[in-house]
Amino acid sequence: MKSLPSQPYKGTRDYYPEDKRIQNYIFAIWHKVTRSYGYEEYGAPLLEPLEVYTAKSGQELAGEQTYTFTDRGGRVVAIRPEMTPTICRMVASRRMEMAYPARMYSIANFMRYERPQRGREREFWQLNVDIFGADGVGAEAEIITLADSIMKEFGAQPNDYVIRINNRKLINFMMAHYFGLDGAQAQMMIKLFDRKNKISEQEFNNQTREIFGENADEGSKKVNDILRASSMAELPAEIRESSVVKEVQDLFTLLERAGVVKSLVFDVTLMRGLDYYTGMVFEVFDTHPDNQRALFGGGRYDGLVGLFGAEPISAVGMAPGGTMMENFLEVHGLKPVMPSTTDIYVAVIGDEAREAGKFARIMREKGLNVELDISDGKLDKQLKTAIKKGVPYIAFVGEAEVASGIYSVKDLINSKEHKLDIDGIVKLIRG
Amino acid sequence: MKSLPSQPYKGTRDYYPEDKRIQNYIFAIWHKVTRSYGYEEYGAPLLEPLEVYTAKSGQELAGEQTYTFTDRGGRVVAIRPEMTPTICRMVASRRMEMAYPARMYSIANFMRYERPQRGREREFWQLNVDIFGADGVGAEAEIITLADSIMKEFGAQPNDYVIRINNRKLINFMMAHYFGLDGAQAQMMIKLFDRKNKISEQEFNNQTREIFGENADEGSKKVNDILRASSMAELPAEIRESSVVKEVQDLFTLLERAGVVKSLVFDVTLMRGLDYYTGMVFEVFDTHPDNQRALFGGGRYDGLVGLFGAEPISAVGMAPGGTMMENFLEVHGLKPVMPSTTDIYVAVIGDEAREAGKFARIMREKGLNVELDISDGKLDKQLKTAIKKGVPYIAFVGEAEVASGIYSVKDLINSKEHKLDIDGIVKLIRG
Repeated sequence: MKSLPSQPYKGTRDYYPEDKRIQNYIFAIWHKVTRSYGYEEYGAPLLEPLEVYTAKSGQELAGEQTYTFTDRGGRVVAIRPEMTPTICRMVASRRMEMAYPARMYSIANFMRYERPQRGREREFWQLNVDIFGADGVGAEAEIITLADSIMKEFGAQPNDYVIRINNRKLINFMMAHYFGLDGAQAQMMIKLFDRKNKISEQEFNNQTREIFGENADEGSKKVNDILRASSMAELPAEIRESSVVKEVQDLFTLLERAGVVKSLVFDVTLMRGLDYYTGMVFEVFDTHPDNQRALFGGGRYDGLVGLFGAEPISAVGMAPGGTMMENFLEVHGLKPVMPSTTDIYVAVIGDEAREAGKFARIMREKGLNVELDISDGKLDKQLKTAIKKGVPYIAFVGEAEVASGIYSVKDLINSKEHKLDIDGIVKLIRG
Repeated sequence: MKSLPSQPYKGTRDYYPEDKRIQNYIFAIWHKVTRSYGYEEYGAPLLEPLEVYTAKSGQELAGEQTYTFTDRGGRVVAIRPEMTPTICRMVASRRMEMAYPARMYSIANFMRYERPQRGREREFWQLNVDIFGADGVGAEAEIITLADSIMKEFGAQPNDYVIRINNRKLINFMMAHYFGLDGAQAQMMIKLFDRKNKISEQEFNNQTREIFGENADEGSKKVNDILRASSMAELPAEIRESSVVKEVQDLFTLLERAGVVKSLVFDVTLMRGLDYYTGMVFEVFDTHPDNQRALFGGGRYDGLVGLFGAEPISAVGMAPGGTMMENFLEVHGLKPVMPSTTDIYVAVIGDEAREAGKFARIMREKGLNVELDISDGKLDKQLKTAIKKGVPYIAFVGEAEVASGIYSVKDLINSKEHKLDIDGIVKLIRG
């Protein structure tokens, strides 16, 4: 028989313990910070009917990137490529019973067909944070403050990232009233802004002229005016005076109050790809020269819960990804060295397997993580195993140790040796 | 447009916060106990090539129960229905680099087509614990002891469950040498034993006679002798004297030493469905009259890593499921009431939103989980929201409170009121 392949499925990743520890570190900070803002964790199914995504997520995500298949009951389903439609479905299903604003979060796995590139994987892990039933800009302020708190909890400095903010209503106003584009043109222009950093300036200008058609000269000039504006004050007066700008200013005020200052940027060209956004959108952007890219983003999507037959309710959310976060930590020198979760390895001298087992049991009862050797192997081989596994301590249990109650313990990281009783060992490891 | 359905995909479950808390309670005990035995966590892809399961998992699992589809690259893949082939692939891929015995665990989601029944879901969560490279019966002893420790950590009493133990080699010996069955007959007889508790005695006897064919009378008698044996000592001498029985006895000795005594049963009719088991098999069986069923099981499967082109290595593992565990806790009155993860709700009196925000920030810095009201709503509505969410405390922040630094705090569970400064509030909640 031919051997089975030992590589993981294309675009997915095997997390060996040393990789999983880093992922767990990221998850732990996500849990901690998100809970500290009063969000409660939920869990959700891996599969949804495909129509849940075709409704509002946009053609790229629902059509090209989704793992879709027909199940044995003839239903066309998709492995979730994102959480937003699912959590909206869950809120819709308990629309009347829930208390609002409802603060919900999850950490889950997703799949998308992606061309392999840095930070993009076909299976990825994502935190989803959403607040339902808060209409005011206080909801955006809270979600963006939470995003900022997460970045700070990872040790990021204000210069390591910027938070870009825009508003879909402002985009729509700009498209219709400033650029004078019709619906189809506006869609194309939004997609083009979205790809701005991925194509050349020349290419961007050519496509802009194409979209504006007979108004290419005037359109191109207006687009360039927009691109030059680096703050709200520099926007053309027609846009600056629209009522949406007041909302954006309120948001900035709330964010400054909450201590999110240095990293904030208003960016009228920020679009965010998903079709369901209806108001404020934002993204956290890595400023490191080796990793200049959006880390994650979010925004307001007030129309989604209503699609599931429930009374509509407002919503703001965001979704940081695990691998993106890991890359960020790496390039900024913030990725910690995570030790083994095992505290101590128990080596057996001679025939003392039974006593070593008892010793391990006592240490476990005292709350330690204890790996017991069951190899009946030589002592130096047991020691090598403990070192190879990265377990920080090893204790030796033989006849003399059992008789005296004093065990020799090696600190394998600092190469020190101790002679201690059981309580002493526990204290050594805890300290 | 027609509304989208708000129900979860058939056979899957929405975990709202109150459900997720119970799942997290179960996961936390799994993590804690498994790590205490020195197992390290890994993560693995959701998809594998289908052939990984057809190789050894058996027709039912790989053929009938697996969610299979062809991906956009023409690969036939499956959503993992179990973890064992995946972790074997991962070990095979680093066969030379890893230290043995390797102790690995994961908590992950899986999918299988199942007929809906109590404790069976199409998407389910499972702990997988495996030890690689330990040939002796000490490996089985450790895994079964770990299973027992998990049950005890959940508060189970020795009479709440039994651990049934058998050995595939003993089964094979019994089939070939005691029953005198050929390969095909043995397969049928194993499947029949496996279904024993799901069909009537009459049905079982009829099918037994059919399998034995012309030796129906003698075969039926021998099978009944086996069924009557409730311990190794009562087994027919031909089986009792086989060398495998010695191995089983050694295992029992080790388990008794480790304190796994009252719950142990030798059951020669225990088969465990999966084709890859090669030695000891076991299952933890719920003894409650309302839930008499196998909760989970495991065993030795020495042949699987070798299928992935690596040098073969021995393996013992087990896989408890989340919903099964939840049902167990429920029928035995062990399911805890899990409070909200949010510690305190901050209500805003009048125009003090800004000060309330500052108050919330300080409480978060002190490590509390704080939900801040951003509704600008009436005070009694804010209070109702906190109660509906099950947050245990609410603090009120108004002009007088800010001026005095003394806040009124309601304990919503015990209906008590306190007047405290910030440190006092933290102490109250922590205590």
